[in-house]
Amino acid sequence: MDEFLPLAKRLADEAGEIARQYFRTPFEVISKDDDSPVTIADREIEARMREILEDERPQDGIHGEEHGIKKSESGLTWVLDPIDGTKSFVIGRATFGTLIALCEDNAPKLGVIDQPILGERWIGDGQKTTYSNFHLGGEFIDRPVKTAKCSSIDLARIGSTTPAMFEDVGPVYKNFNENRFFWGGDCYQYGLMALGFVDIILEASMAPYDYCALVPVIEGAGGHISDFKGQPLTIDSDGTVVACGDPSLWPAIAEKL
Amino acid sequence: MDEFLPLAKRLADEAGEIARQYFRTPFEVISKDDDSPVTIADREIEARMREILEDERPQDGIHGEEHGIKKSESGLTWVLDPIDGTKSFVIGRATFGTLIALCEDNAPKLGVIDQPILGERWIGDGQKTTYSNFHLGGEFIDRPVKTAKCSSIDLARIGSTTPAMFEDVGPVYKNFNENRFFWGGDCYQYGLMALGFVDIILEASMAPYDYCALVPVIEGAGGHISDFKGQPLTIDSDGTVVACGDPSLWPAIAEKL
Repeated sequence: MDEFLPLAKRLADEAGEIARQYFRTPFEVISKDDDSPVTIADREIEARMREILEDERPQDGIHGEEHGIKKSESGLTWVLDPIDGTKSFVIGRATFGTLIALCEDNAPKLGVIDQPILGERWIGDGQKTTYSNFHLGGEFIDRPVKTAKCSSIDLARIGSTTPAMFEDVGPVYKNFNENRFFWGGDCYQYGLMALGFVDIILEASMAPYDYCALVPVIEGAGGHISDFKGQPLTIDSDGTVVACGDPSLWPAIAEKL
Repeated sequence: MDEFLPLAKRLADEAGEIARQYFRTPFEVISKDDDSPVTIADREIEARMREILEDERPQDGIHGEEHGIKKSESGLTWVLDPIDGTKSFVIGRATFGTLIALCEDNAPKLGVIDQPILGERWIGDGQKTTYSNFHLGGEFIDRPVKTAKCSSIDLARIGSTTPAMFEDVGPVYKNFNENRFFWGGDCYQYGLMALGFVDIILEASMAPYDYCALVPVIEGAGGHISDFKGQPLTIDSDGTVVACGDPSLWPAIAEKL
């Protein structure tokens, strides 16, 4: 997948430039969701990424949050979430991200998590994951990163975005120690897992553009990521996502799901 | 309270220097919570702030999270939370903050919310609130800020830190539209409210060092902040906290609490 790295980085660069124009834009009244800065940014970013892909990779498929699905003629499909974590974007919190995945026969092979305000970027190919930090400190460019060891669920730092995600599957997060939980994780928490600061993530009601990019990042950093049954995530998965930095924790987590 | 501004800023500056040393520190095994980087940072920051206060304001009281209560002989008390949002600190997410309040007869008169990684700082005195942005962009120093207008609870962006806060008071947040909710807010969400990006915040089980600094910041930016019954927050309040950027929303919120 290394040949696609420059293109993936270019997509993230151009997405970030648009996101930064709309982040923390003051606005008076939003009459409908279509008018909101995040909706405009979302659409504009995806349109720009699709334009680049049509140009550079016309045979590849595209599966985007905003502008739908274009069938693949090459076996490769780009899965795009221009702004994952729209609620965080809306409140001016820099934990949202642009997610870019490249899938081969529906399986994610390359993933990018990009946080354009803090200038943090994770790129994984399932074998290795690198971290770059362009603004916040700015000293790391493509540094290989690893998830942390964690000997027990009781010591784990456990994250999720919102309890509302679990409406369909039931509140399985309650089987874990609530004292170890943090919320509002967004895609950013998977980046923090790849850096070794988060041990378990539980999410549900996720769409392919929400999770495909996360897979090569977490696996490349040495972690486990799957659906709640332990099946590998593909474009056709059921929307449940469980990740752990230390794969040896997985059997104990599976028992609680 | 303007005479105390330089001292409050100095406390925040020195706190931030220590916090930055420990943030995202790699560590292998934490055998007990006492050993964790956040606990060490918490204690070190508060000790440093107390040392400065003992030097500069020996007659003032101090109410700190880590090192307890020193009685006031001047009628003034400094209320300190070295790291509010320890879970966010632990996972490497820059939404934690140092909270500094100056209370007169138990009522908060000056408040500082400082996010030392992003270099964002809010200072309020109940009449006005200013925002500084030292790293992230870096173009704002002591800029006056205002909360946003919001015509209806149904359009509000509503925040809280964790559902676990509501164990004692009951899940009142369920009386609000879950689709408008974001979680993991920490003290940072009050800063975002002062900038006009958050409309309602609901929290409970808060200690005085968790909420005192927020009061002059939210009121200075034009918002309402009180306990769930609408009473002004003092050092002796019951730990429930409700804030809204547009005070005209308060009667409708009160009905739901």
